Amino acid sequence: MSDVADSAVTSSAACETRPMANALRMLAVDAVEAAKSGHPGMPLGMAEIAVALWDRHLKHNPRNPAWPDRDRFVLSNGHGSMLLYALLHLTGYDLPIDEIRRFRQWHSKTPGHPEVGVTPGVETTTGPLGQGLANAVGMALAEALLAREFNRPAHTIVDHRTYVFAGDGCLMEGVSHEAASLAGTLKLDKLTVLYDDNGISIDGHVAQWFADDTPARFAAYGWHVVRDVDGHDVEAVDRALRGARAAGRPTLICCRTVIGKGAPSKAGTHDVHGAPLGAAEVAATRQALDWPYPPFSIPDDIRASWDAQERGEAAEADWSRRFAAYRRHYPHEAAEFARRMEGTLPAHWRDAVQAMLRDANGAAQSLATRKASQQAIAVLARVLPELLGGSADLTGSNLTDWPAAQAIHADDGGLQGGNYLHYGVREFGMSAVMNGVALHRGHIPFGGTFLTFSDYARNALRMAALMKTRAVFVFTHDSIGLGEDGPTHQPVEHAASLRLIPGLDVWRPCDTVETARAWASAVEREGPTCLLLSRQTLPFVARDDAQIDAIERGGYVLRDWPRAEGERVVLIATGSEVALALEAATLLAEAGVAARVVSMPCTSAFERQPPAWRDAVLPPGVPRVAVEAGVRAFWRQYVGLEGGVVGIDRFGESAPAAALFEHFQLNANAVVQEARRVTRHITRRAP
Amino acid sequence: MSDVADSAVTSSAACETRPMANALRMLAVDAVEAAKSGHPGMPLGMAEIAVALWDRHLKHNPRNPAWPDRDRFVLSNGHGSMLLYALLHLTGYDLPIDEIRRFRQWHSKTPGHPEVGVTPGVETTTGPLGQGLANAVGMALAEALLAREFNRPAHTIVDHRTYVFAGDGCLMEGVSHEAASLAGTLKLDKLTVLYDDNGISIDGHVAQWFADDTPARFAAYGWHVVRDVDGHDVEAVDRALRGARAAGRPTLICCRTVIGKGAPSKAGTHDVHGAPLGAAEVAATRQALDWPYPPFSIPDDIRASWDAQERGEAAEADWSRRFAAYRRHYPHEAAEFARRMEGTLPAHWRDAVQAMLRDANGAAQSLATRKASQQAIAVLARVLPELLGGSADLTGSNLTDWPAAQAIHADDGGLQGGNYLHYGVREFGMSAVMNGVALHRGHIPFGGTFLTFSDYARNALRMAALMKTRAVFVFTHDSIGLGEDGPTHQPVEHAASLRLIPGLDVWRPCDTVETARAWASAVEREGPTCLLLSRQTLPFVARDDAQIDAIERGGYVLRDWPRAEGERVVLIATGSEVALALEAATLLAEAGVAARVVSMPCTSAFERQPPAWRDAVLPPGVPRVAVEAGVRAFWRQYVGLEGGVVGIDRFGESAPAAALFEHFQLNANAVVQEARRVTRHITRRAP
Repeated sequence: MSDVADSAVTSSAACETRPMANALRMLAVDAVEAAKSGHPGMPLGMAEIAVALWDRHLKHNPRNPAWPDRDRFVLSNGHGSMLLYALLHLTGYDLPIDEIRRFRQWHSKTPGHPEVGVTPGVETTTGPLGQGLANAVGMALAEALLAREFNRPAHTIVDHRTYVFAGDGCLMEGVSHEAASLAGTLKLDKLTVLYDDNGISIDGHVAQWFADDTPARFAAYGWHVVRDVDGHDVEAVDRALRGARAAGRPTLICCRTVIGKGAPSKAGTHDVHGAPLGAAEVAATRQALDWPYPPFSIPDDIRASWDAQERGEAAEADWSRRFAAYRRHYPHEAAEFARRMEGTLPAHWRDAVQAMLRDANGAAQSLATRKASQQAIAVLARVLPELLGGSADLTGSNLTDWPAAQAIHADDGGLQGGNYLHYGVREFGMSAVMNGVALHRGHIPFGGTFLTFSDYARNALRMAALMKTRAVFVFTHDSIGLGEDGPTHQPVEHAASLRLIPGLDVWRPCDTVETARAWASAVEREGPTCLLLSRQTLPFVARDDAQIDAIERGGYVLRDWPRAEGERVVLIATGSEVALALEAATLLAEAGVAARVVSMPCTSAFERQPPAWRDAVLPPGVPRVAVEAGVRAFWRQYVGLEGGVVGIDRFGESAPAAALFEHFQLNANAVVQEARRVTRHITRRAP
Repeated sequence: MSDVADSAVTSSAACETRPMANALRMLAVDAVEAAKSGHPGMPLGMAEIAVALWDRHLKHNPRNPAWPDRDRFVLSNGHGSMLLYALLHLTGYDLPIDEIRRFRQWHSKTPGHPEVGVTPGVETTTGPLGQGLANAVGMALAEALLAREFNRPAHTIVDHRTYVFAGDGCLMEGVSHEAASLAGTLKLDKLTVLYDDNGISIDGHVAQWFADDTPARFAAYGWHVVRDVDGHDVEAVDRALRGARAAGRPTLICCRTVIGKGAPSKAGTHDVHGAPLGAAEVAATRQALDWPYPPFSIPDDIRASWDAQERGEAAEADWSRRFAAYRRHYPHEAAEFARRMEGTLPAHWRDAVQAMLRDANGAAQSLATRKASQQAIAVLARVLPELLGGSADLTGSNLTDWPAAQAIHADDGGLQGGNYLHYGVREFGMSAVMNGVALHRGHIPFGGTFLTFSDYARNALRMAALMKTRAVFVFTHDSIGLGEDGPTHQPVEHAASLRLIPGLDVWRPCDTVETARAWASAVEREGPTCLLLSRQTLPFVARDDAQIDAIERGGYVLRDWPRAEGERVVLIATGSEVALALEAATLLAEAGVAARVVSMPCTSAFERQPPAWRDAVLPPGVPRVAVEAGVRAFWRQYVGLEGGVVGIDRFGESAPAAALFEHFQLNANAVVQEARRVTRHITRRAP
């Protein structure tokens, strides 16, 4: 790579772009230096690529980061955050220089990795490698679907591109395979990835652990690939970007770069990746780049070259004029487009939910909750055209499709629209793509797999929670109740461990009515939800109106004590084990113990209730027994040290479901025994 | 694919192999039918491939599944388990026909997916797609490393191959990218993957969601690829397998097959993938295959064709003779090879551990536990040549290397041995490869990444626990203490959620001595261990000999009550928060509250202790406060409803570590406040 090592700084073609690139470089270098931590190598190495994209191609309006038809930019190699902050600052976003000075400090707008919602212009939170690329696939997919749904002849209101910066790390990660394979299959032609091929990762020269012919790999995915672009030649990158527009397929532009370019003694080494350069090297860099200005000081002419506010305002104004014309011709579509991009629910939403709950209650069906979920989806899809369903190749098991679902696919004419995506066997990719779809706005994505394979997607679920994306993860086959497929497919720790992710709502409904309510709450929530659904049939439970209303609180009294005095116990259960608790309550009544049954389909929703509600449902001092076909430790927070938990603390086995529930003692008798133990215990302890 | 649809059943070349293939088919069909569940499609489709490999290439001895130099066979598409069970049964493993009849039933040797340790001849547990392929990469790596370490001129005692069956699902999964890229980079030439290219996955024809040119993709990884092999032509598959032996690189053999081949009306459709054929189709299949025998009945001549016991005994006997010669020439190496393949520790192991602990205690260093871990590795590597280290591209951060570590790499001469692998940015691939290395035997693998990225590897950690592999997962940067990299890199739920995986030991040591003990326990354990280590420096804690001995119990008294009467509280802490608890205890003493500090580095080890130990450490009735820089819910099982927990139930932020601990109130004062609250609480409640 030494042949390109000096071209950017000295190239004659770069006579205008050089100071623009170096402004990015020095903002990054100085900010990392001030923070005493951070990653200067990538911003130094990708500065010319950033100039080519941001100054010549990116359609955006710094004064309105929410403009629906803006291009989306994703920094998948998120550790290079200072490059993005420098770009946002210089092009005119609301990110003043003081925020750059406070890089990586408490409550600055410039955190260590880019975070959506914190910094204007940041489209997604990146850092965990590879996922930004997958988010971008979701954004490009959302654009393509919205364009096909809303554009009309002579009225193109959705027409933007998605750009990604990605490094070696992103491309080593498995999720890059899942996302890129899907993007190629779907011919997402407005997706362009700029690959920072610098030959270096944290451990050193990648050749010893990453010898892929990456261009050939992406060609195998059906991508348009531009090989061997000099990443320090703005014109060369510009040409490749122009070529991408006509490719008819997603494009990978392979840019040979030097990591840390401009730092005289550290460029091209892994030392420059993730640590400040140090005062001496910073001074040497200033000199090498011919940059005499003090830290955080950008000359006016360079600022002017970067400023994209006027251009951005003009671009958006043009779009607004065109959108106004569209609104005149297609008022319903325009209103619907606006609503969906804002993420508000239809006016008749509440009525539709009430009708759905009423109908589910009236039908009184005993169904597997995955089947109840399918019924809820069918109802919701009629009022929510923004639903974008899918499954990681388990449609017939997850029951994520519905009668009016239409499969998205690509043919010689490119992507053909629809509202259902067969994601293939790609749980992580699916989930990260769903996050991208949700971030783009315009759809509410949901996608299914078996609960045990939520493991594959776990960091995307975490990212969904961190970013508060409105995405619904449908996890069926939620316990040993799936039976013969055995322990690899039987979740035992998953319900509990998903509930530990901050900001993630996890619902495990017990019947059709709770499932309908869980779906409605998931749609209403500005954040992600997991639905944990049974393979096996679960009995319908009768409820009065107040109980139906109470479901959304996450925990409520499903059957109350038959009397107020005498030995009492609270049985807490979720999902398939609610039926066991109800059965146990009946048995206990016969034995003279009064048992209340609390259904607890969503612990995080319950925790958000006022203390009065929680204490009313779980009265302090009354012994409790929890029952769930999963690890027991989680439930100690509800039953205390002296309460009881019926659960399973080991891996499952391969056998019919009924045999497993009996062998693992997950039955009403076990609940009764625990209830008698804890009530006796309490009785003994009374003074 | 219709052109190959009928070749296997009618091909003249198959005149001898046809009944062998059909025996596999009908055992699978009849077993699935009897179980009323299972996956007939894959065994029907891969029967000829299985004949080619198992009858003509696979080196194995059914009478000794533990023969060290056997070829390894991995069924990565594990749902086709009946194909493997049929092969094991017919070639002569201890898997009688009654076990085939009891397919998928309680405590049979034929569970729904293959499970290592349950069925003789099963090398790894598969089902979660893609991981079998990655396990196989680990096995091939282990073979290559052992061959380079132990073989001598004219004495080749390690020389076997690793074979994989994989389907579309495996190749869609991201982990297939990570594993295949690494295998290509390392030139693992004894690895051969047979790809069941049937064009069908559960949702239907894969073309709409999986349009990769898979041969080109694997060629991009540097693999030898054989395209367009007729998977129903035993001779064609045989030829490709022979070619693989001379390739000098890993080989992918792309076999075009018809899923469910032989089932007249269901072949070639996704209906045949995962459900019994039904009585009518079974009868039609019998007729189509010209198979007049009743279920589970195999004619003697076909049994004889399949029987591999004699061949296997002869092969192993030949190896044993050669190994005896090796032992005469290289007695030390032979003994060491035998020890390592048995997985026993060196004779002086216990002394070495005691010395390590004594030295760590004597040195009394205050270090980040990741640094303490590096010191422990250096000590252990001197007595454990079987240690195989590595990191997912974070060597300098995880501190997983040591002075004598030697990087494994490949050059024109193929793989060059060593004891340290730069896995690249491939957390999931690394972990699944480590499982394969451990299953092969001969090494104890360990590998590092940041704790937050354990998410990427989570299902491999679960599989490690299910399979009880001796693997050590080194997770550094274990809390918000990592500071400026922000919430994407700051684990908060991970310690708790890893502890929920059954069979996984999770250690979070507080200083050098606990870190040394955690490493020793990890090595001694027949099962996986996670080490959660700090980025930041942690103070050394003085201990007496009894306390040092007690560490391995997972929870012990680090500082006891200064007096026996008056207000008392137990403070429970792990890792970096132990210092806060000690500081709080001092502050509480000044305020008249006696605080015992319990260090709880490994909750699962603590749970394995007898009740007397646990009650002595945590005396019932004394109020407790737990402190850990993570989600609080987990600790309720130790402190009860009325105890206190100091933790963090939200995502972190980007700022220097010290600022974060203060802003999130993770400090000694918060512990003191909680301790005072719970003691007052108890006091108020006293009669």
